[in-house]
Amino acid sequence: MPQLRKDPILKQWVIISPERGKRPHDFRLETEQIDDPETCPFCEGHEGLTPLETMAFRKAGTALNQPGWWVRVIPDRDPILVPTGDTGREGIGMFDAMNAIGIHEVVVETPSHTQTLQTVPLDQVREVIWTYKQRMLDIKKNPRFKHLMIVKNSGRSVSNFSHSHSHIVATPIIPKRIEEEIDGAREYYHYHDRCIFCDIIKQELDQPGRIIYQDAYFVAFCPFASRFPFEVMIIPKTHQPFFEAIDNDHVHGFAQILQITLKKMQALLANLPYNFIIHTSPCSDSYRDFFHWHLELIPKLTQVAGFEWGSGFYINPLPPEDAAQFLRDAVI
Amino acid sequence: MPQLRKDPILKQWVIISPERGKRPHDFRLETEQIDDPETCPFCEGHEGLTPLETMAFRKAGTALNQPGWWVRVIPDRDPILVPTGDTGREGIGMFDAMNAIGIHEVVVETPSHTQTLQTVPLDQVREVIWTYKQRMLDIKKNPRFKHLMIVKNSGRSVSNFSHSHSHIVATPIIPKRIEEEIDGAREYYHYHDRCIFCDIIKQELDQPGRIIYQDAYFVAFCPFASRFPFEVMIIPKTHQPFFEAIDNDHVHGFAQILQITLKKMQALLANLPYNFIIHTSPCSDSYRDFFHWHLELIPKLTQVAGFEWGSGFYINPLPPEDAAQFLRDAVI
Repeated sequence: MPQLRKDPILKQWVIISPERGKRPHDFRLETEQIDDPETCPFCEGHEGLTPLETMAFRKAGTALNQPGWWVRVIPDRDPILVPTGDTGREGIGMFDAMNAIGIHEVVVETPSHTQTLQTVPLDQVREVIWTYKQRMLDIKKNPRFKHLMIVKNSGRSVSNFSHSHSHIVATPIIPKRIEEEIDGAREYYHYHDRCIFCDIIKQELDQPGRIIYQDAYFVAFCPFASRFPFEVMIIPKTHQPFFEAIDNDHVHGFAQILQITLKKMQALLANLPYNFIIHTSPCSDSYRDFFHWHLELIPKLTQVAGFEWGSGFYINPLPPEDAAQFLRDAVI
Repeated sequence: MPQLRKDPILKQWVIISPERGKRPHDFRLETEQIDDPETCPFCEGHEGLTPLETMAFRKAGTALNQPGWWVRVIPDRDPILVPTGDTGREGIGMFDAMNAIGIHEVVVETPSHTQTLQTVPLDQVREVIWTYKQRMLDIKKNPRFKHLMIVKNSGRSVSNFSHSHSHIVATPIIPKRIEEEIDGAREYYHYHDRCIFCDIIKQELDQPGRIIYQDAYFVAFCPFASRFPFEVMIIPKTHQPFFEAIDNDHVHGFAQILQITLKKMQALLANLPYNFIIHTSPCSDSYRDFFHWHLELIPKLTQVAGFEWGSGFYINPLPPEDAAQFLRDAVI
């Protein structure tokens, strides 16, 4: 019988439908298309095809916007938010609007056109994480931005570029999904005086059927009320509200668990398109007791139909316990 | 400059990005695939390929589960919720689960394999609406179901069958998206003692730039904070919480505005896949002052990327004022 499960933070019900009995080979994946490297703006040597870099890790003695970098950050050429101008908050009758002021940057994760976060040396993943941290700390100095996100769309079906990259987005409002997590986490905190994320981690570790991988610092697991097959959460084991406050040990741990998870995912489902997003506390310090940063990884395997859109309640044909088992067993 | 707009009910911010300057011809649509009629379970004469019908409008003298019907309702062969058994609500540590008890039926909207809600005679659309009403009133007699929805997925990219059909889904919980509408509408009602939907209708009618079509009973418009290009809301002009209480005049009006809107949409974008969902008040009477039934129509034109999933904030490359203008001008 299908089961309804409730996400304890978002209070979202999900239908877990084992009768639909999906297994990894049931998901058809297309061969990944690689862009033409001649015209790729993210390749080393093509720095002139992008806006001027905002930062880069580069070899001593190399010049800005020239080859010699190993991670490079540039403003998005077609930004969803623009950095200059007034927020211009206004009421239009009963409606509210403002200018879409914000930051939208691209982190080019490797100079190589074909390497990915799965295939680069682990050290390179760490460098990407240090880049996220450094840019976020810098952007946070501007008090107009209320929230920061790291978003990665991997695969040509979800991204315009095949060259490995991610996005940093700073917004003048707290996005709805983060507000929802805050609301759920705050309510739980008021009731229990504990972080709901910390309690979820404890329960998952006590009954490890949904755990994919863990070490001293992090755990990766398939959430109890996973909306999608092979949905994964990666979260630090100790309470940490701000991703951008990540320390050296956690950068190492996070790089390792992220790469292991992505490798396992690709071992199971070659050419899998996926998104990940890092949820960190809003910039204000007032959420620090109950917000706990984490990464959400969503493989793009299923089409979201009208039912999900219109109802906000999802049908997952693969129980997270099975997904975790497949991922635990995947040999990398 | 892109604009951030807030949905007054859901409190969801949307980026309206006119710079992205999408026009109808920018959206590439694939030619619609038609299933093989020989194996279609929804075609007249193939009644034996489906579960036994729960109702049908059929010619006098024809037998159940035989030809002679013009609208037919059957249980879904692969239901997302199952009708029998106990709800079995339980706590699993801090998590909540229950059996996915519910109703999942399919409304076959026409005996014809190739007709659609756009191409059938208007009278047939009315018959479909009468069918929705009759089934919903019947299902509501079971007090285990807290909420009912009508969902339509049209187009082979969003549905398993090309034969025109829709779904009736009854759930033992109120779906999250409906809870969100209730929360927003209740808060507004407590503040203003007015229905927020009624106030939105008034404002849209006063400044008709987003109106597509209206008559004495209904209005169709592109919402101020549309998440998707050509997103449409169709809503009765007077306050009505329950779709299933629809009267004769409103059945006629609703059939007409729905068919006109779909015809305009297809005139602009041939073979457009779309979803629609009818949001009606939960079964309990306690929402009647502030919940106002409506239909949400979402064309499937854009791929939802990681940013939207992870943040709950959407990027719409086509301002709803432009979308409404295109739809108003579309000749049918």
